[in-house]
Amino acid sequence: MLAQSGNLGTQILAFAAKEDIGIRAFCGSGNEAMITIEDYMEGFEVDEKTKTVVLYVESVKNGRRFFELAKRIGKKKPVIILKGGRTDAGSSAAASHTGAMASDIKVFMAACRQAGIVQAESPMDLLDLSASFSSLPLPKGNKVGILTLGGGWGVVASDLCEENGLIVPKLTEDVILKINKLLPPFWSHANPIDIVAEMNAQTYMKILEELIKWSGCDSIIHMGLIGRMSMIKGVLESTVAVDKKYGSKFVEDSLFYIENFEKQTIEQTVKLMEKYNKPIVGVYLLSDDKTRTVTEVNGGKYKGVNFITPERAVKALAKMYQYSKWLND
Amino acid sequence: MLAQSGNLGTQILAFAAKEDIGIRAFCGSGNEAMITIEDYMEGFEVDEKTKTVVLYVESVKNGRRFFELAKRIGKKKPVIILKGGRTDAGSSAAASHTGAMASDIKVFMAACRQAGIVQAESPMDLLDLSASFSSLPLPKGNKVGILTLGGGWGVVASDLCEENGLIVPKLTEDVILKINKLLPPFWSHANPIDIVAEMNAQTYMKILEELIKWSGCDSIIHMGLIGRMSMIKGVLESTVAVDKKYGSKFVEDSLFYIENFEKQTIEQTVKLMEKYNKPIVGVYLLSDDKTRTVTEVNGGKYKGVNFITPERAVKALAKMYQYSKWLND
Repeated sequence: MLAQSGNLGTQILAFAAKEDIGIRAFCGSGNEAMITIEDYMEGFEVDEKTKTVVLYVESVKNGRRFFELAKRIGKKKPVIILKGGRTDAGSSAAASHTGAMASDIKVFMAACRQAGIVQAESPMDLLDLSASFSSLPLPKGNKVGILTLGGGWGVVASDLCEENGLIVPKLTEDVILKINKLLPPFWSHANPIDIVAEMNAQTYMKILEELIKWSGCDSIIHMGLIGRMSMIKGVLESTVAVDKKYGSKFVEDSLFYIENFEKQTIEQTVKLMEKYNKPIVGVYLLSDDKTRTVTEVNGGKYKGVNFITPERAVKALAKMYQYSKWLND
Repeated sequence: MLAQSGNLGTQILAFAAKEDIGIRAFCGSGNEAMITIEDYMEGFEVDEKTKTVVLYVESVKNGRRFFELAKRIGKKKPVIILKGGRTDAGSSAAASHTGAMASDIKVFMAACRQAGIVQAESPMDLLDLSASFSSLPLPKGNKVGILTLGGGWGVVASDLCEENGLIVPKLTEDVILKINKLLPPFWSHANPIDIVAEMNAQTYMKILEELIKWSGCDSIIHMGLIGRMSMIKGVLESTVAVDKKYGSKFVEDSLFYIENFEKQTIEQTVKLMEKYNKPIVGVYLLSDDKTRTVTEVNGGKYKGVNFITPERAVKALAKMYQYSKWLND
């Protein structure tokens, strides 16, 4: 991570630590009296442990060098930028902060697109994209399979996909037939796959595998399969409070079971990603002290990536698709 | 809160509980075989403890009744909507979820604007807007004063303001002269006010009051004044680890001081809001177990509202301004 703002950089680092998002190194390049952002970028270009180059930039002194370099790096690893000073108000603030020269933002953004630089809209995007690009295989296309524990969330995720340039493809007959064998007859028979009534963890994984195997789908978002600890804990404690048949051991055992299930779910999604080379992103829909964006699974090539909300999952996949498209054009 | 999805509703309730956002009542209206969303809305209209009416809607059976009712309610309290099925993909998913009929989304959204219904873009927006509308005075205009502990964050917030229809006005000479008396000569002399080098808590409050008093400013975003507990804790613990002059009492005392300072800061912003009738939104820039969106201050008419990121603060103020404008047109 490279930022023309020490404060912004260090606060993002603190968020990264909280979300288990690995940061290889951080450089605050200040007002670049001597060493510029391009110099640091050349370092990250050759550093093998740097998987993604993340930038907060207010102004670039040597445009040609910056964009040529970013394009060259981009062929090897993604370059992500948050441009400070996209508006008149932002430019004025940047001028008083780092002495940034105002540039034509449309030209700058077009040059970014040509150079394959992924554009973030807010500081937190930088982290979400860093986590996703560094942990997941790239999607080869923009078709998203959605698996949800609630119909409303499926609607919300579908809207967000389409608004962000992703497609929610209709299931083909062969996939429907396969899922018919796994779910009761009243399942949605469509993408998003609504599995609201099904509580068997192994079934989720079987459906996930049918979906990822399917040539009509380039990536998957699943919602609500994990992240239910705090809600289930509440239900269990209420049960114990009203029904003396159940004791604290019941609560402990159940929570241990759920915790294990969530761990295994992440492990299995990582295995599926390796096997089929397509990204899978989870959505917790709830958070507690243990929810993390990135979960490292021992020995896996990829990592589990799970966001709290569908909008973050969709945005990450949309930006990964844009980069993948640029890479292959 | 009224949702045509039980699952989405209950999960949002869990988030609300975590953020101390008060929910008066929740109705899941399902597929509305008998009682429709308009019926529930009439209940919330007359319920004095309901300050904001929050809706997740996939389809409306009686458009005329819905929009006339929303407009009538909107004159008394804000109505916020997340429309499920804004896109083809979302509409298909909604059809299989609640049997929602597809509607022309542009017409629906235009009718919302006419009726003063505030439009959310994602489920979490519903909560952020609910918290802001129920806890803060409405801004009378779109001019935002920004106070920041870091220059980069000021740039980021300025960009976000302008992109969301808000203005970051230039400070007038009289305000600059007043702040000159409070900050060392190298302060930004501009809005955003960058107070990076100043660590005196009382100075923050004096600047905040100068800014809110100023007729050129309708609302305030402050960033980094609070939310530094986890970072400072880390610094203190490292200090104790390397320098034996400092013991655990030093850490405890310092943390107690910071905690008190943060509490007082929120109390004072609430007092300033009452005195000047303009909203103040804070941004933590960091989060820990204790950060909450809403902080109730005993006896205050308003509540403290603090988000983790500037994008959420900006969006909330932008939507409040839109509603305020509709109300006064």
